Amino acid sequence: MNYIKATNEELLAELESLRSKYARYLADIIRLDMTRGKPSADQLELSERMLGIISSNDDCFDASGLDCRNYGLLDGIPEAKALFASMIDVEPEQVILGGNSSLNLMFDTFCRAFCFGNVDSERPWSQEPKVKFICPAPGYDRHFAICQQFNIQMIPVAMKNDGPDMDAIEALVAEDAAIKGIWCVPKYSNPTGVVFSDEVVRRFANLKPKAPDFRIFWDNAYVIHDLYDESPKLLNILDECEKAGRPNMVYVFSSTSKITYPGSGVAMIASSKSNIEHMKKQIGVQTIGPDKLNQLRHVRMFPNKAALLEQMRKHADLLRPKFDAVLEILARDLEGTGIAKWSKPLGGYFVSFDSMPGCANRIYHLCDEAGVSLTKVGATFPYGNDPEDSNIRLAPSYPPIEELVVAMDRFTVCVRIASIEKILADRGSAVC
Amino acid sequence: MNYIKATNEELLAELESLRSKYARYLADIIRLDMTRGKPSADQLELSERMLGIISSNDDCFDASGLDCRNYGLLDGIPEAKALFASMIDVEPEQVILGGNSSLNLMFDTFCRAFCFGNVDSERPWSQEPKVKFICPAPGYDRHFAICQQFNIQMIPVAMKNDGPDMDAIEALVAEDAAIKGIWCVPKYSNPTGVVFSDEVVRRFANLKPKAPDFRIFWDNAYVIHDLYDESPKLLNILDECEKAGRPNMVYVFSSTSKITYPGSGVAMIASSKSNIEHMKKQIGVQTIGPDKLNQLRHVRMFPNKAALLEQMRKHADLLRPKFDAVLEILARDLEGTGIAKWSKPLGGYFVSFDSMPGCANRIYHLCDEAGVSLTKVGATFPYGNDPEDSNIRLAPSYPPIEELVVAMDRFTVCVRIASIEKILADRGSAVC
Repeated sequence: MNYIKATNEELLAELESLRSKYARYLADIIRLDMTRGKPSADQLELSERMLGIISSNDDCFDASGLDCRNYGLLDGIPEAKALFASMIDVEPEQVILGGNSSLNLMFDTFCRAFCFGNVDSERPWSQEPKVKFICPAPGYDRHFAICQQFNIQMIPVAMKNDGPDMDAIEALVAEDAAIKGIWCVPKYSNPTGVVFSDEVVRRFANLKPKAPDFRIFWDNAYVIHDLYDESPKLLNILDECEKAGRPNMVYVFSSTSKITYPGSGVAMIASSKSNIEHMKKQIGVQTIGPDKLNQLRHVRMFPNKAALLEQMRKHADLLRPKFDAVLEILARDLEGTGIAKWSKPLGGYFVSFDSMPGCANRIYHLCDEAGVSLTKVGATFPYGNDPEDSNIRLAPSYPPIEELVVAMDRFTVCVRIASIEKILADRGSAVC
Repeated sequence: MNYIKATNEELLAELESLRSKYARYLADIIRLDMTRGKPSADQLELSERMLGIISSNDDCFDASGLDCRNYGLLDGIPEAKALFASMIDVEPEQVILGGNSSLNLMFDTFCRAFCFGNVDSERPWSQEPKVKFICPAPGYDRHFAICQQFNIQMIPVAMKNDGPDMDAIEALVAEDAAIKGIWCVPKYSNPTGVVFSDEVVRRFANLKPKAPDFRIFWDNAYVIHDLYDESPKLLNILDECEKAGRPNMVYVFSSTSKITYPGSGVAMIASSKSNIEHMKKQIGVQTIGPDKLNQLRHVRMFPNKAALLEQMRKHADLLRPKFDAVLEILARDLEGTGIAKWSKPLGGYFVSFDSMPGCANRIYHLCDEAGVSLTKVGATFPYGNDPEDSNIRLAPSYPPIEELVVAMDRFTVCVRIASIEKILADRGSAVC
């Protein structure tokens, strides 16, 4: 049924039927979590061999003979730098390996610019009268949280099918020297699943920002996280920035959080050689270096990029049925209703769902009552404020598929209830 | 021979004999490193069992059933918090576990105060017209490097036998609201080996700083790093601050860098509950949490504090002969010469050596030419500036004992050459 075109009587009948379903859900108490992009237990089991891969004193040396147990080596062991450089398609000299968290690398990179400035800064960002960041939205809540903590004004720009609205971004950065950066998840964007087109990447690399120390924070979290063998290719932003004569303008981030272990992976930052040299000097004051044994575990488990890709195919085999289930239930229950649209991602960890404007919060609360936890509505927007009250990020990866199906059944019922209520209210009809 | 009292003729004869020894060193090319407090290979081998202690999927859960491979848990798994809280003699709620580097925790704690202020700040330290830190000297170069990176003015105060000069510190903090903190290594201080007396700890806890957000950075790096069974006890600064009504005034840092692995240990910060709550909120923006599998490895290897202490006895058995060798050679070659004094530490990683004023740099260069690398002279002072040019930090832990003996033989020859040159120059005598 197309709810938008349905009569009030049809909608009221439908609502009654949905509410009686919903009442049964309330009686059947469960708690299902679709809040975050966490790998499932069976995905984690794929890396079991890595756990014990270093088990004796003799295992602890890298190819150069360096003792990975001891102090030293700020930027990572050479073979791990080589492996992860190949993963993100850069040169090893362009990479610094971090601890287990790429978020931490992003925060610290941001924070260093705030405290000390970056290589192109006239002064630390903390000394600027005003600093602003562009935030394509919907986007990743943890990026926005960093801006908020540093009291940086966030300027939302719309996400389109091939990346953020580049016309808007080009105009903003050219005009306003207070705009110091932008957050991006360029492949399988969180939450929309969008892969930035070649044209969008080139337009990023050719930005002419008024601020000389403007930086693109390119969070390539899902660089090899494809659901299908045929996967879209993302143009190399570092190469494009080099070609455009602004090699320092971009920081690329990635990690093995969703390749091996979210809690015990290896994070990395890649950038121009001059950025990397500058950062190494600064990071050398902060730490004596990240966990090299864990880098060694990764290298022993994955001798080359092909081994990483093989691991990702196994992840995809576990994830694909879950995405399929979510998409099938959405299609089954909502296709043709006119009240929702959603992404059909080729990789990454999310399905982005857009309800009718003004319904997302109601859906969230209905789901919560019915035992289904969703990502907080608004989380995908700067300041937690979705101006349309319509975007909901669905995270299918963590629950077992049986639970996911139960959760999605409840979700679409809640969507339909909220939507009918809204339509009837908009028509001025009293909802019984 | 007492060089100070010797005649010029006696000194010239001694110098000639030392210089011929030195000439032989120059011909016998070696490279020995006494620069840093690194555990030796045999110390690292003590933790071999920990490497493979988690080797299957089933091993990855903490006592509460939490999957340590996945995201979550900002402050550490409960049993690891309990273990390390017992190690540093605090309550588990007072602890946040970090990654592998306590330096990183110190830097970040400092940096958060700089960017956002701490719980008692009127404004972020970056917004203050001037921020100063007190630096007991000689001290730890990496503490001073943090101040330098943030452009914080360092005020050196003298180290005495029972801790830093508390009269000076009390006067400074009471007068000057720009003084926001102080660095301390309270047990087996780096490099002097001093253990702060109970009185000194109590005077710290009873400081009345003019700045409400003044903080003591209490780097308890050598908390259980005793060389002998009979070891000095350090009073608990958190308890004393609590008693004195200023529970927020201190941050305690420690790590397992020199218990298990320097590169792959677990670092920790402990403080008042209100500081801890405040920090957790801030850290939650920076990271999704540290490596929990590595915490679990530590807990499985060390079920309780007694197991940690047992490990430290094994470290002491390996370290003690090295300290003994250093102290024996110093006594053999320099006792009674009147040209040097040195510490006889009961724990920690260093012997602090004081030459006659004006000789340390010359000794450093003579040693360097003779193949012995020492910690850069001045490194133990703010701005790398030892006003007396006399302190040299000796780090006996890393080289095998045979090499250490060779290095120390050369060291004392260099000390004697430099000292005789200085004495003769001071007397206005031409040195041939």
